[in-house]
Amino acid sequence: MTGSNVQTVAIYGVGLIGGSFALALREAGYAGRIVGVSSPATIARAIALGAIDEGLPPTEAASRADLVFLAQPIGVILETIGAIARSVPRHALVTDAGSTKSAIMAAAAGHMASGLFVGGHPMAGKEARGVQAASAGLFRGRAWALTPARAEDLQQPRCREFLQWLERIGAVPLVLDAAEHDRIVALTSHLPQLASTALAAMLSQRLSGTGAVHGPGLEDMTRLAISSFDIWADILASNRDNVASALEAYIAVLEAVHKNVVTSANSDICQLFERGSAFARTLRDASNRQPA
Amino acid sequence: MTGSNVQTVAIYGVGLIGGSFALALREAGYAGRIVGVSSPATIARAIALGAIDEGLPPTEAASRADLVFLAQPIGVILETIGAIARSVPRHALVTDAGSTKSAIMAAAAGHMASGLFVGGHPMAGKEARGVQAASAGLFRGRAWALTPARAEDLQQPRCREFLQWLERIGAVPLVLDAAEHDRIVALTSHLPQLASTALAAMLSQRLSGTGAVHGPGLEDMTRLAISSFDIWADILASNRDNVASALEAYIAVLEAVHKNVVTSANSDICQLFERGSAFARTLRDASNRQPA
Repeated sequence: MTGSNVQTVAIYGVGLIGGSFALALREAGYAGRIVGVSSPATIARAIALGAIDEGLPPTEAASRADLVFLAQPIGVILETIGAIARSVPRHALVTDAGSTKSAIMAAAAGHMASGLFVGGHPMAGKEARGVQAASAGLFRGRAWALTPARAEDLQQPRCREFLQWLERIGAVPLVLDAAEHDRIVALTSHLPQLASTALAAMLSQRLSGTGAVHGPGLEDMTRLAISSFDIWADILASNRDNVASALEAYIAVLEAVHKNVVTSANSDICQLFERGSAFARTLRDASNRQPA
Repeated sequence: MTGSNVQTVAIYGVGLIGGSFALALREAGYAGRIVGVSSPATIARAIALGAIDEGLPPTEAASRADLVFLAQPIGVILETIGAIARSVPRHALVTDAGSTKSAIMAAAAGHMASGLFVGGHPMAGKEARGVQAASAGLFRGRAWALTPARAEDLQQPRCREFLQWLERIGAVPLVLDAAEHDRIVALTSHLPQLASTALAAMLSQRLSGTGAVHGPGLEDMTRLAISSFDIWADILASNRDNVASALEAYIAVLEAVHKNVVTSANSDICQLFERGSAFARTLRDASNRQPA
């Protein structure tokens, strides 16, 4: 970018998301420095993959950064915000990739009142984890939620440049209130995860050696269940009320389905299929997903 | 096949499954005649695609067949069994592709006591329907459940030849009792369908224009929801008790998840994730799926 103000990007947590962001910046032509904050083993892998230039300790990375990208688990992001707040240069933009936003926005308001923090959440991922699974195309065609504390934050030049980079890496920025974001992702992300995990866990107890009698649909429905709990403890803890409410709504619909199956209320079940099918089709039209 | 006793295959319902079976037989080297029983429009398309040689009325097709393959919706299969029972030659094998087996096995026992009927259920499919979506590779690496009334039925030469064709088209035959089949598919197929439909239908009412804020996981979890209700009325009606029981078990696990989220019982949720993840991985190892 000509006249770029971002000379150094500091990525905290160089895993799937942090590593993919680095690779995507490089592919999009970013010519500045990318430093990483991660374990020595991860830093070595990330350098070998061409994702980052070097590893640095947390405060040193912060002090040199024009753009700080926190791509750690939510609990670690909350700690990092406190740890680096005084080291981040005043002109820098701090953003993150946490899956819930209210707790992180509150932490930033408490610790970074004099700096500029804009919450972020790239709606991308896959089952595989770690920088070795990172790819420059991970964000292409995917929504990237942004939750500024004030709408005008996005008009600041450093934010506009960040938005330009998001567009160059193929992401689709979507500006949302943090509370609204958390309500929505409880429905579109956290509930689907728990629904998949619950299904797979239940089947593991009901089926013994007969798992082979299944069609491709069961593989779709249990793909999310492969996820490990590591990152989910923080997500659920930081979005408990919304997740509980989403589970309640889902259980209520399943209870109605159960009643309608038992009573052969086919017109009700048919309506449910029609609503579900319409939603599933709209979702695919709306996702703007480019062919990978 | 050298010395094949199957000179003519009659396929009832030349849609995705019936059409794919015809194409798969051709690709595997079947050189006999394939006749179809379907609507005139479907017959014309199936002939144009090279799936079948000609269309015939139901009883005429039955009277000429050495192998009868019923690939219609369950309710139509039940009617067809009664309608063709007297026309099927005594030496022929009748089989089907219905998603539930107990009702179909009972109908066959009632109408075809003097013939040979072996229930079947290819565990393959996709959202797209109709013969235009048919493909020779649809069954490759997928389980094909077989529910003979008596285990010794499978030793008859016409059954052994049918099994050879199943193996040639890449399917993985799995012999099961009809009641056990229906209990299992309630868990591995019917419940996942209802879980996906219920999720999509619930989200359609909770999200308005915000469906774009989602990751790839929601697309997995709503893929089955694209299915139309057409074939599901018969499936649910013919497997009501098993489906109700599967829904009850799923709701019970979701209720436990809800309680554990609300009380932050992380070790319980962590165990659920571990069980779910282990099942999801085993499923993929066990599915014997070849790269498509």
